[in-house]
Amino acid sequence: MFAFSLLPRFSETDGLGHISNTCLPAWFEEARKELFKLFNPTLSLKTWNLILKKYEIDILQQISYENEILIQTSVANIGNKSLTVLQEAFQSQKPVANAKTVLVYFNYQKNLTEEIPAEIKSQLLNHLMPKKSNSLNI
Amino acid sequence: MFAFSLLPRFSETDGLGHISNTCLPAWFEEARKELFKLFNPTLSLKTWNLILKKYEIDILQQISYENEILIQTSVANIGNKSLTVLQEAFQSQKPVANAKTVLVYFNYQKNLTEEIPAEIKSQLLNHLMPKKSNSLNI
Amino acid sequence: MFAFSLLPRFSETDGLGHISNTCLPAWFEEARKELFKLFNPTLSLKTWNLILKKYEIDILQQISYENEILIQTSVANIGNKSLTVLQEAFQSQKPVANAKTVLVYFNYQKNLTEEIPAEIKSQLLNHLMPKKSNSLNI
Amino acid sequence: MFAFSLLPRFSETDGLGHISNTCLPAWFEEARKELFKLFNPTLSLKTWNLILKKYEIDILQQISYENEILIQTSVANIGNKSLTVLQEAFQSQKPVANAKTVLVYFNYQKNLTEEIPAEIKSQLLNHLMPKKSNSLNI
Repeated sequence: MFAFSLLPRFSETDGLGHISNTCLPAWFEEARKELFKLFNPTLSLKTWNLILKKYEIDILQQISYENEILIQTSVANIGNKSLTVLQEAFQSQKPVANAKTVLVYFNYQKNLTEEIPAEIKSQLLNHLMPKKSNSLNI
Repeated sequence: MFAFSLLPRFSETDGLGHISNTCLPAWFEEARKELFKLFNPTLSLKTWNLILKKYEIDILQQISYENEILIQTSVANIGNKSLTVLQEAFQSQKPVANAKTVLVYFNYQKNLTEEIPAEIKSQLLNHLMPKKSNSLNI
Repeated sequence: MFAFSLLPRFSETDGLGHISNTCLPAWFEEARKELFKLFNPTLSLKTWNLILKKYEIDILQQISYENEILIQTSVANIGNKSLTVLQEAFQSQKPVANAKTVLVYFNYQKNLTEEIPAEIKSQLLNHLMPKKSNSLNI
Repeated sequence: MFAFSLLPRFSETDGLGHISNTCLPAWFEEARKELFKLFNPTLSLKTWNLILKKYEIDILQQISYENEILIQTSVANIGNKSLTVLQEAFQSQKPVANAKTVLVYFNYQKNLTEEIPAEIKSQLLNHLMPKKSNSLNI
Protein backbone atom coordinates (compact mmCIF):
# COMPACT_ATOMS: atom_id res chain seq x y z
CA MET A 1 0.00 0.00 0.00
CA PHE A 2 1.16 3.53 -0.81
CA ALA A 3 0.25 6.53 1.34
CA PHE A 4 0.03 10.04 -0.08
CA SER A 5 -1.18 13.28 1.44
CA LEU A 6 -2.19 16.58 -0.10
CA LEU A 7 -3.72 19.88 0.88
CA PRO A 8 -6.86 20.77 -1.09
CA ARG A 9 -6.36 23.88 -3.19
CA PHE A 10 -8.52 26.96 -2.79
CA SER A 11 -9.23 26.82 -6.53
CA GLU A 12 -10.63 23.30 -6.11
CA THR A 13 -13.58 24.46 -4.02
CA ASP A 14 -16.78 25.14 -5.93
CA GLY A 15 -19.72 27.45 -5.46
CA LEU A 16 -21.36 24.97 -3.09
CA GLY A 17 -18.53 25.53 -0.59
CA HIS A 18 -16.93 22.10 -0.83
CA ILE A 19 -14.30 20.54 -3.08
CA SER A 20 -15.61 20.01 -6.63
CA ASN A 21 -16.12 16.36 -7.57
CA THR A 22 -14.22 17.12 -10.79
CA CYS A 23 -10.93 17.49 -8.87
CA LEU A 24 -10.84 13.96 -7.53
CA PRO A 25 -9.35 12.18 -10.57
CA ALA A 26 -6.29 14.45 -10.46
CA TRP A 27 -5.88 13.80 -6.70
CA PHE A 28 -6.11 10.05 -7.14
CA GLU A 29 -3.71 10.25 -10.09
CA GLU A 30 -1.15 12.06 -7.93
CA ALA A 31 -1.55 9.42 -5.24
CA ARG A 32 -0.55 6.79 -7.83
CA LYS A 33 2.83 8.47 -8.43
CA GLU A 34 4.77 5.84 -6.41
CA LEU A 35 2.96 3.13 -8.34
CA PHE A 36 3.89 4.88 -11.62
CA LYS A 37 7.55 4.73 -10.53
CA LEU A 38 7.39 0.93 -10.53
CA PHE A 39 6.59 1.19 -14.24
CA ASN A 40 8.70 4.22 -15.10
CA PRO A 41 11.28 4.99 -12.40
CA THR A 42 12.24 8.44 -13.73
CA LEU A 43 8.61 9.49 -14.33
CA SER A 44 9.88 10.89 -17.64
CA LEU A 45 7.06 11.54 -20.10
CA LYS A 46 9.24 10.11 -22.88
CA THR A 47 9.21 6.64 -21.31
CA TRP A 48 5.62 6.70 -20.00
CA ASN A 49 4.01 3.27 -20.41
CA LEU A 50 0.55 3.32 -18.81
CA ILE A 51 -2.80 4.47 -20.12
CA LEU A 52 -5.98 4.88 -18.12
CA LYS A 53 -8.95 2.80 -19.29
CA LYS A 54 -11.58 3.55 -16.68
CA TYR A 55 -12.23 4.88 -13.21
CA GLU A 56 -15.09 4.78 -10.79
CA ILE A 57 -15.25 7.35 -8.00
CA ASP A 58 -17.60 7.27 -5.00
CA ILE A 59 -17.99 10.36 -2.89
CA LEU A 60 -18.88 9.47 0.69
CA GLN A 61 -18.78 12.90 2.32
CA GLN A 62 -18.58 16.53 1.33
CA ILE A 63 -14.86 17.37 1.28
CA SER A 64 -13.77 20.64 2.84
CA TYR A 65 -10.97 22.96 1.81
CA GLU A 66 -9.42 23.41 5.22
CA ASN A 67 -8.03 19.98 6.10
CA GLU A 68 -5.43 17.65 4.67
CA ILE A 69 -6.37 14.61 2.57
CA LEU A 70 -4.69 11.24 3.04
CA ILE A 71 -4.97 8.74 0.17
CA GLN A 72 -4.11 5.03 0.46
CA THR A 73 -3.43 3.16 -2.76
CA SER A 74 -3.37 -0.63 -3.23
CA VAL A 75 -3.28 -3.00 -6.17
CA ALA A 76 -6.48 -5.06 -6.35
CA ASN A 77 -5.90 -7.15 -9.43
CA ILE A 78 -2.99 -7.80 -11.80
CA GLY A 79 -3.84 -9.00 -15.31
CA ASN A 80 -1.57 -9.74 -18.26
CA LYS A 81 -1.81 -6.27 -19.71
CA SER A 82 -3.66 -4.27 -17.08
CA LEU A 83 -4.05 -3.71 -13.37
CA THR A 84 -6.84 -2.50 -11.11
CA VAL A 85 -5.98 0.00 -8.41
CA LEU A 86 -8.10 0.72 -5.33
CA GLN A 87 -7.77 3.98 -3.47
CA GLU A 88 -9.35 5.42 -0.35
CA ALA A 89 -9.25 9.11 0.57
CA PHE A 90 -9.60 10.28 4.17
CA GLN A 91 -10.06 13.71 5.69
CA SER A 92 -9.87 14.24 9.46
CA GLN A 93 -9.71 10.43 9.85
CA LYS A 94 -13.00 9.91 8.01
CA PRO A 95 -13.29 8.17 4.63
CA VAL A 96 -14.47 10.77 2.10
CA ALA A 97 -14.05 9.13 -1.32
CA ASN A 98 -13.00 5.87 -2.99
CA ALA A 99 -11.61 5.22 -6.46
CA LYS A 100 -11.21 2.10 -8.56
CA THR A 101 -9.05 2.60 -11.63
CA VAL A 102 -8.01 0.31 -14.48
CA LEU A 103 -4.60 1.07 -16.02
CA VAL A 104 -3.26 -0.65 -19.12
CA TYR A 105 0.42 -1.25 -19.94
CA PHE A 106 0.82 0.70 -23.16
CA ASN A 107 3.53 1.33 -25.73
CA TYR A 108 3.00 4.92 -26.92
CA GLN A 109 5.52 4.57 -29.78
CA LYS A 110 3.76 1.53 -31.24
CA ASN A 111 0.36 2.75 -30.03
CA LEU A 112 -0.61 -0.67 -28.64
CA THR A 113 -1.03 -2.52 -25.36
CA GLU A 114 1.68 -4.91 -24.17
CA GLU A 115 2.12 -7.52 -21.45
CA ILE A 116 3.28 -6.21 -18.10
CA PRO A 117 6.90 -7.43 -17.63
CA ALA A 118 7.40 -10.11 -14.97
CA GLU A 119 9.71 -7.90 -12.86
CA ILE A 120 7.06 -5.21 -12.59
CA LYS A 121 4.39 -7.80 -11.78
CA SER A 122 6.44 -9.13 -8.91
CA GLN A 123 6.92 -5.63 -7.51
CA LEU A 124 3.18 -4.98 -7.78
CA LEU A 125 2.57 -8.04 -5.60
CA ASN A 126 4.13 -6.13 -2.69
CA HIS A 127 1.34 -3.61 -2.91
CA LEU A 128 -1.68 -5.86 -3.01
CA MET A 129 -4.70 -4.68 -1.09
CA PRO A 130 -4.57 -5.99 2.49
CA LYS A 131 -7.15 -8.72 3.07
CA LYS A 132 -10.10 -7.70 5.21
CA SER A 133 -10.20 -9.47 8.60
CA ASN A 134 -11.59 -12.96 8.22
CA SER A 135 -14.61 -14.02 10.23
CA LEU A 136 -13.22 -17.55 10.66
CA ASN A 137 -10.54 -16.04 12.81
CA ILE A 138 -12.30 -16.65 16.14
CA MET B 1 -31.78 13.19 -24.57
CA PHE B 2 -29.68 16.34 -24.37
CA ALA B 3 -26.92 17.17 -26.86
CA PHE B 4 -23.95 19.33 -25.94
CA SER B 5 -20.78 20.16 -27.82
CA LEU B 6 -17.46 21.60 -26.69
CA LEU B 7 -14.00 22.28 -28.04
CA PRO B 8 -11.22 20.65 -26.01
CA ARG B 9 -8.96 23.25 -24.42
CA PHE B 10 -5.25 23.39 -25.11
CA SER B 11 -4.64 23.29 -21.35
CA GLU B 12 -6.54 19.99 -21.17
CA THR B 13 -3.94 18.11 -23.18
CA ASP B 14 -1.29 16.31 -21.16
CA GLY B 15 2.32 15.36 -21.78
CA LEU B 16 1.24 12.23 -23.63
CA GLY B 17 -0.26 14.41 -26.36
CA HIS B 18 -3.91 13.60 -25.76
CA ILE B 19 -6.63 15.02 -23.49
CA SER B 20 -5.97 14.19 -19.83
CA ASN B 21 -8.43 11.70 -18.33
CA THR B 22 -8.80 14.09 -15.40
CA CYS B 23 -10.69 16.60 -17.58
CA LEU B 24 -13.60 14.33 -18.40
CA PRO B 25 -15.70 14.82 -15.24
CA ALA B 26 -15.85 18.58 -15.89
CA TRP B 27 -16.87 17.96 -19.53
CA PHE B 28 -19.63 15.57 -18.55
CA GLU B 29 -20.76 17.98 -15.82
CA GLU B 30 -21.09 20.78 -18.41
CA ALA B 31 -23.09 18.45 -20.65
CA ARG B 32 -25.57 18.00 -17.78
CA LYS B 33 -26.34 21.73 -17.66
CA GLU B 34 -29.73 21.36 -19.40
CA LEU B 35 -30.58 18.58 -16.98
CA PHE B 36 -29.58 20.82 -14.07
CA LYS B 37 -32.05 23.43 -15.37
CA LEU B 38 -34.92 20.98 -14.82
CA PHE B 39 -33.96 21.04 -11.12
CA ASN B 40 -32.87 24.67 -10.86
CA PRO B 41 -34.05 26.77 -13.84
CA THR B 42 -31.88 29.82 -13.07
CA LEU B 43 -28.75 27.70 -12.37
CA SER B 44 -28.22 30.03 -9.39
CA LEU B 45 -25.78 28.58 -6.86
CA LYS B 46 -28.07 29.81 -4.06
CA THR B 47 -30.86 27.44 -5.10
CA TRP B 48 -28.67 24.49 -6.15
CA ASN B 49 -30.30 21.20 -5.16
CA LEU B 50 -28.22 18.32 -6.50
CA ILE B 51 -25.14 16.61 -5.13
CA LEU B 52 -22.98 14.09 -6.96
CA LYS B 53 -22.67 10.68 -5.28
CA LYS B 54 -20.62 8.71 -7.79
CA TYR B 55 -19.41 8.52 -11.34
CA GLU B 56 -17.88 5.89 -13.55
CA ILE B 57 -15.97 6.93 -16.66
CA ASP B 58 -14.78 4.61 -19.45
CA ILE B 59 -12.26 5.89 -21.95
CA LEU B 60 -12.65 4.16 -25.30
CA GLN B 61 -10.14 6.07 -27.41
CA GLN B 62 -7.37 8.59 -26.98
CA ILE B 63 -9.04 12.00 -27.30
CA SER B 64 -7.28 14.63 -29.39
CA TYR B 65 -7.14 18.37 -28.90
CA GLU B 66 -8.01 19.39 -32.43
CA ASN B 67 -11.60 18.25 -32.90
CA GLU B 68 -14.95 19.05 -31.34
CA ILE B 69 -16.57 16.76 -28.77
CA LEU B 70 -20.28 15.94 -28.85
CA ILE B 71 -21.87 14.62 -25.65
CA GLN B 72 -25.30 12.98 -25.46
CA THR B 73 -26.97 12.82 -22.07
CA SER B 74 -29.92 10.61 -21.05
CA VAL B 75 -31.63 9.68 -17.82
CA ALA B 76 -31.23 5.94 -17.12
CA ASN B 77 -33.00 5.57 -13.83
CA ILE B 78 -35.15 7.77 -11.58
CA GLY B 79 -35.32 6.87 -7.90
CA ASN B 80 -37.09 8.61 -5.03
CA LYS B 81 -34.14 10.77 -4.08
CA SER B 82 -31.63 10.16 -6.83
CA LEU B 83 -31.20 9.66 -10.55
CA THR B 84 -28.68 7.91 -12.76
CA VAL B 85 -27.44 9.72 -15.85
CA LEU B 86 -25.78 8.06 -18.84
CA GLN B 87 -23.56 10.04 -21.18
CA GLU B 88 -21.69 9.25 -24.36
CA ALA B 89 -18.93 11.44 -25.80
CA PHE B 90 -18.07 11.37 -29.50
CA GLN B 91 -15.20 12.90 -31.47
CA SER B 92 -15.15 12.83 -35.27
CA GLN B 93 -18.26 10.56 -35.13
CA LYS B 94 -16.49 7.92 -33.00
CA PRO B 95 -17.42 7.14 -29.39
CA VAL B 96 -14.49 8.18 -27.18
CA ALA B 97 -15.81 8.00 -23.61
CA ASN B 98 -18.87 7.06 -21.56
CA ALA B 99 -20.00 8.23 -18.14
CA LYS B 100 -22.54 6.95 -15.63
CA THR B 101 -23.28 9.38 -12.83
CA VAL B 102 -25.52 9.20 -9.76
CA LEU B 103 -26.94 12.53 -8.58
CA VAL B 104 -28.91 12.98 -5.37
CA TYR B 105 -31.60 15.59 -4.72
CA PHE B 106 -30.11 17.54 -1.85
CA ASN B 107 -31.13 20.42 0.40
CA TYR B 108 -27.92 22.38 1.10
CA GLN B 109 -29.61 24.52 3.79
CA LYS B 110 -30.78 21.51 5.81
CA ASN B 111 -27.77 19.42 4.67
CA LEU B 112 -29.93 16.40 3.84
CA THR B 113 -31.31 14.46 0.93
CA GLU B 114 -34.95 14.96 -0.09
CA GLU B 115 -37.45 13.30 -2.44
CA ILE B 116 -37.37 14.52 -6.02
CA PRO B 117 -40.61 16.51 -6.55
CA ALA B 118 -43.20 14.87 -8.84
CA GLU B 119 -43.08 17.75 -11.38
CA ILE B 120 -39.35 17.28 -11.86
CA LYS B 121 -39.76 13.50 -12.11
CA SER B 122 -42.27 13.87 -14.89
CA GLN B 123 -39.94 16.19 -16.81
CA LEU B 124 -37.09 13.72 -16.38
CA LEU B 125 -39.23 11.06 -18.07
CA ASN B 126 -38.93 13.05 -21.30
CA HIS B 127 -35.20 12.45 -21.28
CA LEU B 128 -35.08 8.72 -20.63
CA MET B 129 -32.41 6.81 -22.50
CA PRO B 130 -33.75 5.70 -25.88
CA LYS B 131 -34.29 1.93 -26.10
CA LYS B 132 -31.79 0.23 -28.42
CA SER B 133 -33.47 -0.82 -31.67
CA ASN B 134 -34.45 -4.47 -31.52
CA SER B 135 -33.86 -6.45 -34.70
CA LEU B 136 -36.63 -8.94 -33.81
CA ASN B 137 -39.14 -6.14 -34.03
CA ILE B 138 -40.12 -6.65 -37.67
CA MET C 1 -10.03 41.30 -33.79
CA PHE C 2 -11.21 37.81 -32.93
CA ALA C 3 -14.42 37.16 -30.97
CA PHE C 4 -14.89 34.06 -28.84
CA SER C 5 -17.63 33.08 -26.43
CA LEU C 6 -17.79 30.44 -23.72
CA LEU C 7 -20.05 29.30 -20.92
CA PRO C 8 -18.36 29.26 -17.49
CA ARG C 9 -18.17 25.74 -16.09
CA PHE C 10 -19.73 24.79 -12.78
CA SER C 11 -16.35 23.40 -11.70
CA GLU C 12 -14.78 26.82 -12.30
CA THR C 13 -16.73 28.46 -9.48
CA ASP C 14 -14.99 28.61 -6.14
CA GLY C 15 -16.14 28.63 -2.54
CA LEU C 16 -16.73 32.39 -2.69
CA GLY C 17 -19.53 31.82 -5.21
CA HIS C 18 -17.86 33.38 -8.24
CA ILE C 19 -15.50 32.10 -10.94
CA SER C 20 -12.03 31.39 -9.57
CA ASN C 21 -9.35 33.80 -10.78
CA THR C 22 -7.23 30.73 -11.58
CA CYS C 23 -9.51 29.79 -14.50
CA LEU C 24 -8.93 32.94 -16.51
CA PRO C 25 -5.63 32.00 -18.23
CA ALA C 26 -7.28 28.90 -19.76
CA TRP C 27 -10.23 31.02 -20.96
CA PHE C 28 -7.98 33.62 -22.55
CA GLU C 29 -5.87 30.84 -24.08
CA GLU C 30 -8.99 29.34 -25.71
CA ALA C 31 -9.94 32.75 -27.04
CA ARG C 32 -6.56 32.88 -28.82
CA LYS C 33 -7.33 29.71 -30.81
CA GLU C 34 -8.05 31.63 -34.06
CA LEU C 35 -4.80 33.52 -33.56
CA PHE C 36 -2.98 30.20 -33.03
CA LYS C 37 -4.33 29.04 -36.39
CA LEU C 38 -2.45 31.85 -38.14
CA PHE C 39 0.74 30.24 -36.80
CA ASN C 40 -0.30 26.60 -37.00
CA PRO C 41 -3.38 26.10 -39.22
CA THR C 42 -4.07 22.48 -38.15
CA LEU C 43 -3.56 23.23 -34.44
CA SER C 44 -1.58 19.97 -34.35
CA LEU C 45 0.60 19.70 -31.25
CA LYS C 46 3.39 18.28 -33.43
CA THR C 47 3.75 21.55 -35.32
CA TRP C 48 3.10 23.94 -32.42
CA ASN C 49 5.35 26.99 -32.66
CA LEU C 50 4.44 29.44 -29.90
CA ILE C 51 5.46 29.61 -26.27
CA LEU C 52 3.98 31.88 -23.63
CA LYS C 53 6.43 34.25 -21.95
CA LYS C 54 4.18 36.29 -19.67
CA TYR C 55 0.62 37.35 -18.95
CA GLU C 56 -1.02 40.02 -16.92
CA ILE C 57 -4.65 39.63 -15.91
CA ASP C 58 -6.86 42.32 -14.36
CA ILE C 59 -10.15 41.32 -12.80
CA LEU C 60 -12.65 44.17 -13.00
CA GLN C 61 -15.77 42.46 -11.61
CA GLN C 62 -16.74 39.26 -9.87
CA ILE C 63 -17.62 36.80 -12.64
CA SER C 64 -20.72 34.68 -12.18
CA TYR C 65 -21.36 31.12 -13.29
CA GLU C 66 -24.72 31.71 -14.93
CA ASN C 67 -23.97 33.91 -17.91
CA GLU C 68 -21.95 33.61 -21.10
CA ILE C 69 -18.53 35.23 -21.47
CA LEU C 70 -17.49 37.05 -24.63
CA ILE C 71 -13.77 37.58 -25.22
CA GLN C 72 -12.32 39.96 -27.82
CA THR C 73 -8.72 39.38 -28.87
CA SER C 74 -6.45 41.83 -30.71
CA VAL C 75 -2.78 42.06 -31.53
CA ALA C 76 -1.16 45.02 -29.78
CA ASN C 77 2.43 44.74 -30.87
CA ILE C 78 4.39 42.61 -33.34
CA GLY C 79 8.11 42.16 -32.69
CA ASN C 80 10.70 40.12 -34.58
CA LYS C 81 10.25 37.03 -32.46
CA SER C 82 7.27 37.80 -30.26
CA LEU C 83 3.87 39.43 -30.19
CA THR C 84 1.72 41.04 -27.53
CA VAL C 85 -1.95 40.12 -27.41
CA LEU C 86 -4.66 42.18 -25.68
CA GLN C 87 -7.92 40.58 -24.63
CA GLU C 88 -11.10 41.86 -23.02
CA ALA C 89 -13.70 39.61 -21.41
CA PHE C 90 -17.32 40.71 -21.08
CA GLN C 91 -20.26 39.19 -19.20
CA SER C 92 -23.78 40.59 -19.66
CA GLN C 93 -22.25 43.43 -21.72
CA LYS C 94 -19.96 44.55 -18.86
CA PRO C 95 -16.15 44.27 -18.99
CA VAL C 96 -15.12 41.75 -16.34
CA ALA C 97 -11.43 41.03 -17.04
CA ASN C 98 -8.53 42.04 -19.28
CA ALA C 99 -5.43 40.13 -20.29
CA LYS C 100 -2.13 41.14 -21.86
CA THR C 101 -0.04 38.20 -23.03
CA VAL C 102 3.38 37.93 -24.65
CA LEU C 103 3.86 34.96 -26.98
CA VAL C 104 7.19 34.01 -28.53
CA TYR C 105 7.68 32.22 -31.86
CA PHE C 106 9.44 29.04 -30.79
CA ASN C 107 10.95 25.99 -32.44
CA TYR C 108 10.27 23.10 -30.05
CA GLN C 109 12.55 20.71 -31.97
CA LYS C 110 15.57 23.04 -31.74
CA ASN C 111 14.38 24.44 -28.40
CA LEU C 112 15.01 28.05 -29.44
CA THR C 113 13.17 31.18 -30.47
CA GLU C 114 12.95 32.14 -34.13
CA GLU C 115 11.85 35.13 -36.19
CA ILE C 116 8.15 35.27 -37.02
CA PRO C 117 7.85 34.61 -40.79
CA ALA C 118 6.82 37.58 -42.92
CA GLU C 119 3.60 35.88 -44.14
CA ILE C 120 2.40 35.41 -40.57
CA LYS C 121 3.36 38.97 -39.66
CA SER C 122 1.26 40.32 -42.50
CA GLN C 123 -1.72 38.27 -41.41
CA LEU C 124 -1.31 39.51 -37.83
CA LEU C 125 -1.60 43.07 -39.12
CA ASN C 126 -5.24 42.35 -39.94
CA HIS C 127 -5.92 41.82 -36.28
CA LEU C 128 -4.28 44.87 -34.77
CA MET C 129 -6.10 46.44 -31.90
CA PRO C 130 -8.56 49.04 -33.19
CA LYS C 131 -7.47 52.57 -32.33
CA LYS C 132 -9.80 54.21 -29.81
CA SER C 133 -11.76 56.90 -31.63
CA ASN C 134 -10.44 60.27 -30.58
CA SER C 135 -12.83 63.12 -31.19
CA LEU C 136 -10.15 65.76 -30.57
CA ASN C 137 -8.10 64.44 -33.45
CA ILE C 138 -9.07 67.03 -35.98
CA MET D 1 8.98 35.45 3.52
CA PHE D 2 6.95 32.26 3.26
CA ALA D 3 8.33 29.08 1.65
CA PHE D 4 6.05 26.51 0.03
CA SER D 5 6.84 23.43 -2.01
CA LEU D 6 4.71 21.31 -4.31
CA LEU D 7 5.05 18.47 -6.77
CA PRO D 8 3.71 19.26 -10.24
CA ARG D 9 0.74 17.05 -11.15
CA PHE D 10 0.76 14.78 -14.16
CA SER D 11 -2.51 16.40 -15.26
CA GLU D 12 -0.79 19.80 -15.27
CA THR D 13 1.52 18.89 -18.14
CA ASP D 14 0.32 19.85 -21.60
CA GLY D 15 0.80 18.46 -25.08
CA LEU D 16 4.09 20.33 -25.43
CA GLY D 17 5.56 18.16 -22.67
CA HIS D 18 5.96 20.85 -20.02
CA ILE D 19 3.68 22.28 -17.32
CA SER D 20 0.85 24.36 -18.81
CA ASN D 21 1.14 28.08 -18.15
CA THR D 22 -2.52 27.98 -17.07
CA CYS D 23 -1.62 26.04 -13.89
CA LEU D 24 0.60 28.71 -12.41
CA PRO D 25 -2.06 30.92 -10.81
CA ALA D 26 -3.32 27.98 -8.73
CA TRP D 27 0.24 27.14 -7.65
CA PHE D 28 0.96 30.72 -6.61
CA GLU D 29 -2.43 30.88 -4.83
CA GLU D 30 -1.52 27.76 -2.80
CA ALA D 31 1.82 29.30 -1.91
CA ARG D 32 -0.08 32.26 -0.41
CA LYS D 33 -1.92 30.01 2.08
CA GLU D 34 0.24 31.10 5.06
CA LEU D 35 -0.35 34.71 4.07
CA PHE D 36 -4.11 34.02 3.90
CA LYS D 37 -3.93 32.74 7.50
CA LEU D 38 -2.81 36.18 8.68
CA PHE D 39 -6.14 37.47 7.35
CA ASN D 40 -8.31 34.46 8.17
CA PRO D 41 -6.61 32.08 10.62
CA THR D 42 -9.07 29.19 10.14
CA LEU D 43 -9.06 29.51 6.33
CA SER D 44 -12.84 29.05 6.57
CA LEU D 45 -14.64 30.13 3.41
CA LYS D 46 -17.34 31.76 5.57
CA THR D 47 -14.88 34.30 6.95
CA TRP D 48 -12.82 34.82 3.79
CA ASN D 49 -11.83 38.48 3.43
CA LEU D 50 -9.55 38.88 0.41
CA ILE D 51 -10.30 39.26 -3.27
CA LEU D 52 -7.80 39.11 -6.11
CA LYS D 53 -7.59 42.22 -8.29
CA LYS D 54 -4.75 41.41 -10.65
CA TYR D 55 -1.77 39.19 -11.27
CA GLU D 56 1.20 39.26 -13.57
CA ILE D 57 3.09 36.04 -14.25
CA ASP D 58 6.47 35.76 -16.01
CA ILE D 59 7.64 32.37 -17.18
CA LEU D 60 11.43 32.18 -17.21
CA GLN D 61 11.94 28.52 -18.12
CA GLN D 62 9.94 25.54 -19.33
CA ILE D 63 8.76 23.76 -16.17
CA SER D 64 9.04 19.98 -16.10
CA TYR D 65 6.75 17.47 -14.45
CA GLU D 66 9.41 15.44 -12.68
CA ASN D 67 10.87 17.81 -10.10
CA GLU D 68 9.58 19.64 -7.07
CA ILE D 69 8.74 23.33 -7.17
CA LEU D 70 9.71 25.72 -4.36
CA ILE D 71 7.83 29.02 -4.12
CA GLN D 72 8.96 31.97 -2.00
CA THR D 73 6.34 34.56 -1.14
CA SER D 74 6.95 38.09 0.17
CA VAL D 75 4.89 41.21 0.71
CA ALA D 76 6.06 44.03 -1.56
CA ASN D 77 3.68 46.81 -0.67
CA ILE D 78 0.96 47.37 1.93
CA GLY D 79 -1.74 49.90 1.08
CA ASN D 80 -4.81 50.94 3.07
CA LYS D 81 -7.10 48.39 1.45
CA SER D 82 -4.78 46.24 -0.62
CA LEU D 83 -1.40 44.58 -0.69
CA THR D 84 1.01 43.51 -3.41
CA VAL D 85 2.60 40.09 -3.13
CA LEU D 86 5.76 38.99 -4.95
CA GLN D 87 6.48 35.33 -5.54
CA GLU D 88 9.36 33.41 -7.09
CA ALA D 89 9.12 29.77 -8.18
CA PHE D 90 12.22 27.59 -8.42
CA GLN D 91 12.75 24.10 -9.85
CA SER D 92 16.07 22.28 -9.38
CA GLN D 93 17.46 25.50 -7.85
CA LYS D 94 16.71 27.55 -10.97
CA PRO D 95 14.13 30.37 -11.07
CA VAL D 96 11.31 29.26 -13.39
CA ALA D 97 8.50 31.79 -12.87
CA ASN D 98 7.62 34.98 -10.98
CA ALA D 99 4.26 36.37 -9.93
CA LYS D 100 3.10 39.76 -8.76
CA THR D 101 -0.41 39.76 -7.32
CA VAL D 102 -2.64 42.50 -5.91
CA LEU D 103 -5.11 41.37 -3.23
CA VAL D 104 -7.81 43.61 -1.78
CA TYR D 105 -9.28 43.37 1.71
CA PHE D 106 -12.93 42.63 0.99
CA ASN D 107 -16.12 42.18 2.96
CA TYR D 108 -18.12 39.54 1.06
CA GLN D 109 -21.28 40.13 3.17
CA LYS D 110 -21.36 43.86 2.41
CA ASN D 111 -19.76 43.33 -1.03
CA LEU D 112 -17.27 46.17 -0.55
CA THR D 113 -13.60 46.82 0.11
CA GLU D 114 -12.47 47.74 3.62
CA GLU D 115 -9.31 49.01 5.30
CA ILE D 116 -6.84 46.34 6.34
CA PRO D 117 -6.92 46.25 10.19
CA ALA D 118 -3.80 47.58 11.94
CA GLU D 119 -3.04 44.21 13.61
CA ILE D 120 -2.89 42.47 10.24
CA LYS D 121 -0.78 45.26 8.76
CA SER D 122 1.78 44.87 11.52
CA GLN D 123 1.96 41.11 10.93
CA LEU D 124 2.42 41.69 7.19
CA LEU D 125 5.47 43.85 7.98
CA ASN D 126 7.24 40.68 9.16
CA HIS D 127 6.99 39.30 5.66
CA LEU D 128 8.25 42.23 3.62
CA MET D 129 10.42 41.39 0.66
CA PRO D 130 14.07 41.28 1.72
CA LYS D 131 16.02 44.23 0.31
CA LYS D 132 18.52 43.24 -2.36
CA SER D 133 22.03 43.74 -0.97
CA ASN D 134 23.42 47.02 -2.23
CA SER D 135 27.16 47.21 -2.43
CA LEU D 136 27.14 51.02 -2.44
CA ASN D 137 25.45 51.04 0.94
CA ILE D 138 28.59 51.20 3.09
